[in-house]
Amino acid sequence: SRSIRLAAIPGDGIGPEVVAEGLKVLDAVAPAHDLSFEQTEYDLGAARYHRTGEVLPDSVLAELRDQDVILLGAIGDPSVPSGLLERGLLLRTRFEFDHYANLRPVKLLPGATSPLAGVGPDDIDMLVVREGTESLYAGTGGVIRKGTPHEIATQESVNTAFGVERVIRYAFEQAAARPRKKLTLVHKDNVLAYAGDLYQRTLKRVGEEYPQVETDYCHVDAATMFFVNQPQRFDVIVTDNLFGDIITDIGAAVAGGIGLAASGNVNPDGTAPSMFEPVHGSAPDIAGQGKADPTATILSVVMLLDHLGEDAAARRVESAVAEDLIERGGAGVRSTAQIGDAIAKRVAG
Amino acid sequence: SRSIRLAAIPGDGIGPEVVAEGLKVLDAVAPAHDLSFEQTEYDLGAARYHRTGEVLPDSVLAELRDQDVILLGAIGDPSVPSGLLERGLLLRTRFEFDHYANLRPVKLLPGATSPLAGVGPDDIDMLVVREGTESLYAGTGGVIRKGTPHEIATQESVNTAFGVERVIRYAFEQAAARPRKKLTLVHKDNVLAYAGDLYQRTLKRVGEEYPQVETDYCHVDAATMFFVNQPQRFDVIVTDNLFGDIITDIGAAVAGGIGLAASGNVNPDGTAPSMFEPVHGSAPDIAGQGKADPTATILSVVMLLDHLGEDAAARRVESAVAEDLIERGGAGVRSTAQIGDAIAKRVAG
Ligand SMILES: CC(C)[C@H](C(=O)O)[C@@H](O)C(=O)O
Ligand SMILES: CC(C)[C@H](C(=O)O)[C@@H](O)C(=O)O
Repeated sequence: SRSIRLAAIPGDGIGPEVVAEGLKVLDAVAPAHDLSFEQTEYDLGAARYHRTGEVLPDSVLAELRDQDVILLGAIGDPSVPSGLLERGLLLRTRFEFDHYANLRPVKLLPGATSPLAGVGPDDIDMLVVREGTESLYAGTGGVIRKGTPHEIATQESVNTAFGVERVIRYAFEQAAARPRKKLTLVHKDNVLAYAGDLYQRTLKRVGEEYPQVETDYCHVDAATMFFVNQPQRFDVIVTDNLFGDIITDIGAAVAGGIGLAASGNVNPDGTAPSMFEPVHGSAPDIAGQGKADPTATILSVVMLLDHLGEDAAARRVESAVAEDLIERGGAGVRSTAQIGDAIAKRVAG
Repeated sequence: SRSIRLAAIPGDGIGPEVVAEGLKVLDAVAPAHDLSFEQTEYDLGAARYHRTGEVLPDSVLAELRDQDVILLGAIGDPSVPSGLLERGLLLRTRFEFDHYANLRPVKLLPGATSPLAGVGPDDIDMLVVREGTESLYAGTGGVIRKGTPHEIATQESVNTAFGVERVIRYAFEQAAARPRKKLTLVHKDNVLAYAGDLYQRTLKRVGEEYPQVETDYCHVDAATMFFVNQPQRFDVIVTDNLFGDIITDIGAAVAGGIGLAASGNVNPDGTAPSMFEPVHGSAPDIAGQGKADPTATILSVVMLLDHLGEDAAARRVESAVAEDLIERGGAGVRSTAQIGDAIAKRVAG
């Protein structure tokens, strides 16, 4: 049997509840595919920060680096200054482990309901490849004269040929493997002239190696509009870290809600473990009540299995989710664990 | 009669077509309200650029400064490098004339159709106050080692206490004058720590002067989602230049489409003329075909009249648009001029 080291970081708020269901489904699918997951749970997030002042100790980062994959719940709590855990734990992991391809499928599954009138599964089927290690997320910037009428606060978007090329190349590979073979660059090159130009030139240059892929460009503001009124327009999208953050939340909204949106922070070179997580946050308002939908986490487990090359296991979990979604309408209100149980049962049976 | 100097900048693509209808409606409303508009048309945009190499000569800028108000169509054409006209003409005017309050109502009018299922006019009624003179739009940044594998392209977001405070104060005034009295700051303070903190601290400090206004914070990514599935959540929104650009396009999409979205680039201190323009772009693909909807421009004329303090005239045009929208369903496909004619007729009659 193939043994896989998996780190689980349940995190804050609803994180532990949804991760528990993700692991339940993973345990259900493993035996039939001869997989065994050596799971280590890492206690990181608000509680640890309050107890010890630690966000992500270097020793923990080193242990995580030794894992094959990471499953993350959600990070962030109102009791901690905004951004402290997000930057110190989530973004630090993405940067340290070079998760340059942040994969976010935007796909309306049969059974899921889009808030858009008259839109069905055939209309929304895209993959957003969000750059994960640069742009405004670099964290550079600063403040002078803080608290005075002369305060100036700056933030810097840092974009490198190295970083832009590798994510665009990755996106071309994804587009080439899909039936429509279309890649749209989403940026704002009419305002962000330097960064936009680097993305545009790179798209053009790398695109010469992929003549079978049709390329297209769309300003980020127009793209958000098209997500709502012409989602059919998109197949694969490549975009920078900040624009990717924003458009994938609209993507989640139009494709059935944030309860279904999965993601993978992928290091395609395999130099460090990739990390899978639902797109949603820690939702402290509903934490501990069994109200969170674990489906986004379970779909992140599907991405995790795909990343491991465990195609058969991935398809099995995916089908179980699809069946559950289709019957969901008649199922009444279920708790987080009931949804996880139902999907795990389908997977096992 | 009150004489008002108005500069019209029709611009590119569908700009001239929609501005013609805006002016038609303005001419129709003027007599009954004892207004006379001294109109000067400025030939700026792609055609002039190709003819003379000029984008916005200083002499033209000086003439514009002498006007009372500006009505702009749209700027940008594929024959000109992306951003050249946008930055040199549109953004330059916003910056030179200190248009720090970019007002963008997001309101579902009766008769307009939202792409969101089950959503009616009571559900979408917000005002976005977008900062117009700072953040990533400052244009600072640069590139080194261009065209090499070691290229680095940066963009800087510049945010000042001066700039942030005045727009937040303006937004509080707007919120205080509306029935719900709610102001939401939209930002990304968990990632853009310096700028986000400046916005948050300023909201809190200025908010002490407006105890009657309820304040709230929402990350930009979550906000885009709420625009789609909980638009009721918002009343007045204040946000930075880039986030405002993005969320108002989604706002336009959910509130009946970009053909209806109006905006004002307002200098609240009156030190330079304010500029009104539809949110849509130049749409070169449909230019010259009479297909563009001039309603966004006509609603921008409503904002222009309000800005001039001509409340009665503004309400008259607004009602004419509202009536036209309600009857639009039965009106069949109309040309740009036919829509303008219909609204002008209602205004005059
Ligand atoms: C929590 C936050 C830092 C994060 C991001 O901005 O990337 C989140 O919104 C996401 O999309 O994963
Ligand atoms: C044309 C472009 C520079 C402009 C902007 O980004 O502000 C437009 O999108 C807008 O919203 O008015």
